Amino acid sequence: MKITALAGGVGGSKLAQGLSEVLPPDDLTIVVNTGDDFRFFGLYICPDIDTVTYTLANLSNPVTGWGVRDDTFNTFETLHRNGSPAWFKLGDRDLATHMERTRQLADGKTLTDVCRYFNKTWQVKHSILPMTNDPVPTIIDTIEFGMLPFQEYFAKHHCEPTIKQVIFQGMESAQASPAVLDALHASDAVIICPSNPLLSIDPILALPQIKEILKTKYVAAVSPIIGGKAVKGPLAKMYAEKGIEPNPVTIAEHYRDFLECIFIDNQDENYGKDIQQSGIIFQSTNIMMPDLPNRKRLAQTIINYLETI
Amino acid sequence: MKITALAGGVGGSKLAQGLSEVLPPDDLTIVVNTGDDFRFFGLYICPDIDTVTYTLANLSNPVTGWGVRDDTFNTFETLHRNGSPAWFKLGDRDLATHMERTRQLADGKTLTDVCRYFNKTWQVKHSILPMTNDPVPTIIDTIEFGMLPFQEYFAKHHCEPTIKQVIFQGMESAQASPAVLDALHASDAVIICPSNPLLSIDPILALPQIKEILKTKYVAAVSPIIGGKAVKGPLAKMYAEKGIEPNPVTIAEHYRDFLECIFIDNQDENYGKDIQQSGIIFQSTNIMMPDLPNRKRLAQTIINYLETI
Repeated sequence: MKITALAGGVGGSKLAQGLSEVLPPDDLTIVVNTGDDFRFFGLYICPDIDTVTYTLANLSNPVTGWGVRDDTFNTFETLHRNGSPAWFKLGDRDLATHMERTRQLADGKTLTDVCRYFNKTWQVKHSILPMTNDPVPTIIDTIEFGMLPFQEYFAKHHCEPTIKQVIFQGMESAQASPAVLDALHASDAVIICPSNPLLSIDPILALPQIKEILKTKYVAAVSPIIGGKAVKGPLAKMYAEKGIEPNPVTIAEHYRDFLECIFIDNQDENYGKDIQQSGIIFQSTNIMMPDLPNRKRLAQTIINYLETI
Repeated sequence: MKITALAGGVGGSKLAQGLSEVLPPDDLTIVVNTGDDFRFFGLYICPDIDTVTYTLANLSNPVTGWGVRDDTFNTFETLHRNGSPAWFKLGDRDLATHMERTRQLADGKTLTDVCRYFNKTWQVKHSILPMTNDPVPTIIDTIEFGMLPFQEYFAKHHCEPTIKQVIFQGMESAQASPAVLDALHASDAVIICPSNPLLSIDPILALPQIKEILKTKYVAAVSPIIGGKAVKGPLAKMYAEKGIEPNPVTIAEHYRDFLECIFIDNQDENYGKDIQQSGIIFQSTNIMMPDLPNRKRLAQTIINYLETI
């Protein structure tokens, strides 16, 4: 069974890692959000792609979920000491990734080429693809600061500003990469990882053709909300600001146009009935993935379920 | 007495440091070659400016003469391990300089603004100016490899290729910065540091107006050649490839259009007669500057001499 997983950063990388443990390389493609990519001190940074890639390469920092394990921070400590606006923290070994990526992009390579290069370099066998080779920077329109490039909202202002609107700049002329479209067309099912729907998954869905393909596929999602809270990140706060209750029902509704099934946590089983009423199947299990055994377990549960369809 | 010094990298930085020890900040401007600037992994690197600035800021690595003292190399070790073309070695703390410079240039600042920012950050009191705000990359036309950007000749190929020609790309539309022209106009004398005439000083001289201003000033040079050898770098080899003997006479002749006086090493005193025959005064002294006392001593000797004129 061929699977395409749609993923953002930390949450997405956990399930992607689990899936990579239970599926052979040819049967899994991970399509990653690039809306949070940005240029920082001249370097091209792809936070979600790096988080997923470092995780599958067993290079990731197990404490933060992002960055490289056992990294040093001598460059950024120097930037701080000099008073530079170093609000996005990059480790010295992590910097090598951004420098090589920037070099290859300046050389005319696509982001897809660059991802493949790093997968090869770090012997990641499963395909990790950026959703697009075109820049589609997410802009957060906030009450307090007006328009903020995503990482300024997220990392500089710690998600504190109130969101009026999320804008995917450049989306009108962007295309999903050919490799992404090929993977989706070839897949038997699509799994939406427990990433932020508004910030991590919506950019992927906003690309031309993606939703249309998803409507023809069996699509299962894993809820990023457990017990009314996001496992990580500003999702619950963002939903509250929109007047939407953060729970598995509203997550399922967000994907209603193409979603067949949602995996929710055991403690949210009481929402099952409401989910079913909107015509979506729910499966309740333990969806927390603090470590590799739990990631593998949840991935196996999802694959086992999909094999029954 | 107001002095403008023209400088390249390591050799220039030594005399510039000596001069900064014997002249008050208002009386010394150091104009630095930017022909060796290049973009590397997306970052804008200015090797000569950084060498001069680190030296005057007491941040420089005393062993290599370039880079930052007590630096680590975690980013570049990672690039090497991954197989990236990391042939120009940058330390982790040094990288912070290139990142901040790249950020400020992308923000619309001039290279002069950026130099002033770093001088202020590191409390360098004497003015260090890039010769121009325009990119004028030096290209080395070689027999073995054809056209090589300067740092590929210098750092990647260790000056081994045979030079056919040195090209200052973009010079036809470049201008010396207004600050450089102001400093030169205001100076009572100009000192050409013991830098490579062909690679470090000629780019400065090739800018419009510079030679014309020098013809109106008292100009003294310090020979970069001692005992037929360059203290550092490929100068002697380059001269040999051009069929020119590397000695203080040929150095003086290189600057003959505007040079009044050349400081040569005691061991080269025998060349004095030939120098005088071309109408240039020579002063022989110990021109080796391995440490700060020697840099200060030579700077004081030059200033004492200029004060007698």
